[in-house]
Amino acid sequence: MNIVCEKSVLAAALGLAQRAVAIKSPMPNLKGILLETGEQGLILSATDLEFGITCQVETKIVEHGSIVLPAKLLTEFVRKLPDGLIEIKSDSENPLKIHIICDPIKFELSGFSPEEFPNLPGVKEDAVRIEVKEGLLREMLTQTEVAVAREDTRPVLTGLLMEIEGGKLKFIATDGHRLAFRQAVTEEKQELKAIIPSRAVQELIKILEPDIDQKVTVYVDNSSIAFDMNGLVLSSRLVEGKYPPYQQIIPTNFKTAAVVDAGAFTAALERAEILVREGGNNLVRLSIQDDGIKLLAFSQDVGAIDDFVNAGVEGEAVEIKFNVRLLLDCFRNIKDKEVNIDLTGEFSPCMIRPVGDHNYLHLVLPVRLNQ
Amino acid sequence: MNIVCEKSVLAAALGLAQRAVAIKSPMPNLKGILLETGEQGLILSATDLEFGITCQVETKIVEHGSIVLPAKLLTEFVRKLPDGLIEIKSDSENPLKIHIICDPIKFELSGFSPEEFPNLPGVKEDAVRIEVKEGLLREMLTQTEVAVAREDTRPVLTGLLMEIEGGKLKFIATDGHRLAFRQAVTEEKQELKAIIPSRAVQELIKILEPDIDQKVTVYVDNSSIAFDMNGLVLSSRLVEGKYPPYQQIIPTNFKTAAVVDAGAFTAALERAEILVREGGNNLVRLSIQDDGIKLLAFSQDVGAIDDFVNAGVEGEAVEIKFNVRLLLDCFRNIKDKEVNIDLTGEFSPCMIRPVGDHNYLHLVLPVRLNQ
Repeated sequence: MNIVCEKSVLAAALGLAQRAVAIKSPMPNLKGILLETGEQGLILSATDLEFGITCQVETKIVEHGSIVLPAKLLTEFVRKLPDGLIEIKSDSENPLKIHIICDPIKFELSGFSPEEFPNLPGVKEDAVRIEVKEGLLREMLTQTEVAVAREDTRPVLTGLLMEIEGGKLKFIATDGHRLAFRQAVTEEKQELKAIIPSRAVQELIKILEPDIDQKVTVYVDNSSIAFDMNGLVLSSRLVEGKYPPYQQIIPTNFKTAAVVDAGAFTAALERAEILVREGGNNLVRLSIQDDGIKLLAFSQDVGAIDDFVNAGVEGEAVEIKFNVRLLLDCFRNIKDKEVNIDLTGEFSPCMIRPVGDHNYLHLVLPVRLNQ
Repeated sequence: MNIVCEKSVLAAALGLAQRAVAIKSPMPNLKGILLETGEQGLILSATDLEFGITCQVETKIVEHGSIVLPAKLLTEFVRKLPDGLIEIKSDSENPLKIHIICDPIKFELSGFSPEEFPNLPGVKEDAVRIEVKEGLLREMLTQTEVAVAREDTRPVLTGLLMEIEGGKLKFIATDGHRLAFRQAVTEEKQELKAIIPSRAVQELIKILEPDIDQKVTVYVDNSSIAFDMNGLVLSSRLVEGKYPPYQQIIPTNFKTAAVVDAGAFTAALERAEILVREGGNNLVRLSIQDDGIKLLAFSQDVGAIDDFVNAGVEGEAVEIKFNVRLLLDCFRNIKDKEVNIDLTGEFSPCMIRPVGDHNYLHLVLPVRLNQ
């Protein structure tokens, strides 16, 4: 291998590829990034076996070749080089050794064999193909990933369900205590269900930029998914199994409907959270009345809080207890100013969604504990 | 107690006082902030027994009183209140309970008795009093604190020596491998030596603002020190013991004198550090030649680096090995463009100081290991 490239371009690409590197692995290869020359330039690939990232770097190719280099060291080192051209070339005597030259700096680095580098997860040729705007995809993933189960007692719940149905692209997550649902229009007609592992979703959220209209192409087959962001490809295996029928638990009739200002209600929840975190109970009691919602929280030996947020309320008055963190996770993901809080009673899930928006909703189960 | 104050002013003062709160302590009082009314308003105090912070808040006082409240909870809670006036008043039935009211928010908090709150470290009336510009004090502390010993095999070395001698205020730190020295002119005539604990220095650095000409008043007696920053007072006990006679180890004759660009040399050290960190040896070999300094570093099974930084060199050529982190700690604290590196041989301390500046210097011992 003998290539010449711009430092800044290589540093940026290494920073992206590094995200898929296995943090802890007994296989040195998995702590590495595969560098290989292609038709158009240098291709960087990394994988932790579950998901992978591939990206391209524009380079002048003097001699084709490939090698696996330690990811963290290479990324940090290239970042610290002065701006300008970098030459990367194989050692004439040892093909697993690379020289990185940026005059007067000469860096000699030992690598691993590219033959032993694992295949990245990839989709089959007949994969379903859809397009989503980058900013929208990021928003949809962020709003739903929060409800993914963190423990793997039921493996399917540790992933995010992606569904195409009736001209809608949908993302759904639930951990048994709450459910997050977000949908958007798609032109793809074929119906599908795929469960994306949470780690891949989290990395994707970090890579995607907010408020960007450029399209991301998503490819899905029955075992893998790939997100192509203008040449930067994140691919992942899917979680196997059948996702529970979530539609059945979304309520449609309510006895109490409140409309609150999202900012004011979030601030009140945050104050209550500071108090109950101390006591370890995490409970907030909402008392929904004529003209607003009273928030009461209590922490043994520490103190108590009595707060009130104005709300437009229709229907029956109700008292209901929640884990304040579940409500906060939901409210912090709502950008809209006004929010509907709909309830059927003190033991039924509460539905939270932006006023007039039927594309995003969050269900939170109340706490039944008596206190 | 019954007072009324501005939320933003109280939140800022709590944020400062909180810095002195004991992070882990079996005494609940030490996790608290003492609130007491004075002539001018509310006085906040906190201490971990070794050092303490006191600050004043402008308040309307309706009724005098005092209480100790849990620091973290109170600070976070006040920060989350809406802007405006806050009323803090004792419960009519329980003097160890406080009501914080910011309509419609009512927060009830249990506190501790102010009688059991420990005295803050304080200086005696006959303390020596000097004045230093805030920005300069911060710079002097930052440049020297880096060399304080982190382990307490010799307790005096875990503190920063402050010395007044010959019209100069001096700060000195050494951990046995390097020494940092910084001085500035003072009008104080009385000579003194005081060893300030490193934790107090670190908190002081966080509180002091850079590039501020306003004066900080420093009071020192034989057991304590206090820094008065316009009403905000940080006080600390001093480390007991006799600081070693550091002057004797500052060399005055050199066989090799190099002048380098600080930025270029720091960048080269940082690249070497990335490599040797991986191998765990932390060694960089400097070869000081006619026209510059060659940097060589090596990490078993990983790679090698060969770098070069232009330098004006006078005297003998020399090869010398250093722990790269000690050099980096020093170079990162030098703001000047050009730096003198003066050497007497491969086994003697190297002296590093900004060109033409005799107020700041850093000594670093070379590594004698053969490799």
